[in-house]
Amino acid sequence: MLQPNIPETSEPRVVIVGGGFGGIMLAKSLRKAAFQVVLLDRNNYHLFQPLLYQVATAGLEPDSIAFPLRGIFKKQKNFHFRMAEVKGVNTAENILDTNIGPIKFDHLVLATGSNTNFFGNKQIEQHAIGMKSLIEAVQIRNYVLKQFEESLLMGNDDDIRTKLNFVMVGGGPTGVELAGAFAELREYILPKDYPELPLHLMEVYLIEAGPRLLAAMSEKSSQRTEAGLRKLGVKVLTNTAVKDYDGTTLVLGNGEVLRSQSLLWSAGVKGVPVDGLPADNIIPNGRIIVNEFNQVKGFNNIYAIGDAAQLANDERFPKGYPMVAQVASQQGSNVGKNLKRSLKGEAMQPFKYKDLGSMATIGRHRAVAEFLGLKLAGYFAWIVWMVVHLLNLMGFRNKMVVFINWAYRYLTYDRGTRIIIKRGAANIVKLRQSIDTSTE
Amino acid sequence: MLQPNIPETSEPRVVIVGGGFGGIMLAKSLRKAAFQVVLLDRNNYHLFQPLLYQVATAGLEPDSIAFPLRGIFKKQKNFHFRMAEVKGVNTAENILDTNIGPIKFDHLVLATGSNTNFFGNKQIEQHAIGMKSLIEAVQIRNYVLKQFEESLLMGNDDDIRTKLNFVMVGGGPTGVELAGAFAELREYILPKDYPELPLHLMEVYLIEAGPRLLAAMSEKSSQRTEAGLRKLGVKVLTNTAVKDYDGTTLVLGNGEVLRSQSLLWSAGVKGVPVDGLPADNIIPNGRIIVNEFNQVKGFNNIYAIGDAAQLANDERFPKGYPMVAQVASQQGSNVGKNLKRSLKGEAMQPFKYKDLGSMATIGRHRAVAEFLGLKLAGYFAWIVWMVVHLLNLMGFRNKMVVFINWAYRYLTYDRGTRIIIKRGAANIVKLRQSIDTSTE
Repeated sequence: MLQPNIPETSEPRVVIVGGGFGGIMLAKSLRKAAFQVVLLDRNNYHLFQPLLYQVATAGLEPDSIAFPLRGIFKKQKNFHFRMAEVKGVNTAENILDTNIGPIKFDHLVLATGSNTNFFGNKQIEQHAIGMKSLIEAVQIRNYVLKQFEESLLMGNDDDIRTKLNFVMVGGGPTGVELAGAFAELREYILPKDYPELPLHLMEVYLIEAGPRLLAAMSEKSSQRTEAGLRKLGVKVLTNTAVKDYDGTTLVLGNGEVLRSQSLLWSAGVKGVPVDGLPADNIIPNGRIIVNEFNQVKGFNNIYAIGDAAQLANDERFPKGYPMVAQVASQQGSNVGKNLKRSLKGEAMQPFKYKDLGSMATIGRHRAVAEFLGLKLAGYFAWIVWMVVHLLNLMGFRNKMVVFINWAYRYLTYDRGTRIIIKRGAANIVKLRQSIDTSTE
Repeated sequence: MLQPNIPETSEPRVVIVGGGFGGIMLAKSLRKAAFQVVLLDRNNYHLFQPLLYQVATAGLEPDSIAFPLRGIFKKQKNFHFRMAEVKGVNTAENILDTNIGPIKFDHLVLATGSNTNFFGNKQIEQHAIGMKSLIEAVQIRNYVLKQFEESLLMGNDDDIRTKLNFVMVGGGPTGVELAGAFAELREYILPKDYPELPLHLMEVYLIEAGPRLLAAMSEKSSQRTEAGLRKLGVKVLTNTAVKDYDGTTLVLGNGEVLRSQSLLWSAGVKGVPVDGLPADNIIPNGRIIVNEFNQVKGFNNIYAIGDAAQLANDERFPKGYPMVAQVASQQGSNVGKNLKRSLKGEAMQPFKYKDLGSMATIGRHRAVAEFLGLKLAGYFAWIVWMVVHLLNLMGFRNKMVVFINWAYRYLTYDRGTRIIIKRGAANIVKLRQSIDTSTE
């Protein structure tokens, strides 16, 4: 019989669900406050999602973009972590139902993030590959490298093409960065690793339903991005919908057909709500409606932040804030401040979003970045992109390992982590004998 | 229909099965020879097995001890790699049967390495954990960290102990190094990550059936090793057999009972032979009997090297050479030289083993090393151990990443890679759709 075993204290308990950017920032901001802070996550690490695409394309090892949650908070006395899956919330009794038992809360903050959104297309969902978790990124890497290996074993060019064509769907930062990375795999890795394969058999597609890439950035940055990708040989198709995909044949909106065994879907995300909240609090894309203090409609002790929260108090974002790390961090920080204010009997302050800018890397020496009213592109934007990502990555060891990988790749044009880790047969029975079977 | 697609040439084809130390050394030594070199491996990387235990104990990322095979040979024109599983050999027709189709050979070298040997004890085999592959090491890391997490959820001390007790069986270098690493996890990681857990609930056992640890080294080094481990708090049990294990209860030869959910078995390895060789060529521990040129008994164009080979031409090793990297490398090199000699019509030279020494690390600042007649222990041996392992690790990127990890751990007492990577549910169907299903 499992029990959460969280010590009882006289201080009010804040339970945070999710150790992403929002959850981390909130837990940190309560460091010296008279709260007991309980963080739950299904994983024991914080994941730096902006670099997931580099794991998927054999540029970084998975461990270098994940940081153990216990390590982050080892000096925070009022902090307790439990690795757990949340099953639902009992709002009448303030109890969270989890796979490790029920957990009482005084305040609950849902920072559950988002999942890949296939917009209800089951056929595509079954055959396309999403990329929101570390294991997905590792599996993509293994899968992609296997496509390369297997392309050597084909009997004709058409079959080779099907293995070597890679299609990104979604022209946001993830799609752009993936497409650029695949183009670089073709340029620098394929000729060295597979000298027997003719390069023209591999194509990289980036498909976007809207009129331009990186729609959240300026028209100018979109144009520069598209030009940069085309220079790398990426086939960019805008105003193009994906109608169907059966695992090898992809049908576009205009009826055109592409052949590929690898469709990477980053065309949308949806919030991950928690069972037990009133249904009319949740909008179709899964986000939970909150007020300007991030309180869930109808509750004053239940909050949602980041990707999971639908907050429309800013005329720049009438449909809610973008699902990005910055919003989550700032909302986490604001909820933390408000909780501390409430302890002192002070009034809460509404959330105000401060857009620090956005950026995307296209390839070696090429990125676009917009901040402080500047619109940068090219080499300098690329340097800025790297510095910002390195600085925001958690932990000195991770920073160093990522830096080494980048320096190595820059100097040698090589990608060091292109290994295929296969699940083995031996002792898997034993290693599966573990309590948490929900995700096995 | 898969086909190996290996180009036809007029040069004789040497097919090497296995990209371990022996296979790599052989393929390299044929770099400028008039042979076509075909290397097969079920993985696309060379694994530096001596550091596997550090992956298992959250000290290194898996990618840092694996190096892509194609990367090693990218400048070798006569080299071809195929990721494949060998099913058997047709010695009458000189054809190797594989999962990617039949491959003809002129010379065949079996460098298939070894697997964990449970000596026929099915009950232990089912519940104990072996550690010979990268995925096993990653799974052990995930499993061990999960034991820590789950120990917090137990209702009584006995259940916590069962989760936190770790038992190594086998007093060779792997068992010794694992035991030392677990003792360090208890000393440096547990108090910081799990301040709620009383340390005395975790025990580390090292069990050896023979009278002493590191039997291949001197009596003096054995004593130093045992003393070093005891100082770290490891319970060393020599002259102790393991009779039974059901996944939680371990019965020793003397009837004593230990409770642990984690039994790591490194008490023996066995060669991995290939189907199709005459049965009387294979001894009970799976090794293939070869002559002093590493030719398999009865054949002059089929060789076995390293762990897979049983060669008894040295009176120091009447039962065959130890299953270590040095022997494999030297045999690979000698077979390479002999193949080149045979091209020129020269006589082959018999294998002569040059023992360069052996070493094992016990923990921070502690190792034993024997070479050039020296018997070292302590700090200096530890430095030597690190330098030798770093120098032998393949690739500049891997060397740097391992160095960063070691420096970080040395300075902070932290282990950076203690993340649990769970298999996810999403898109797994798609990602499994791959030709090679043999090991899925």
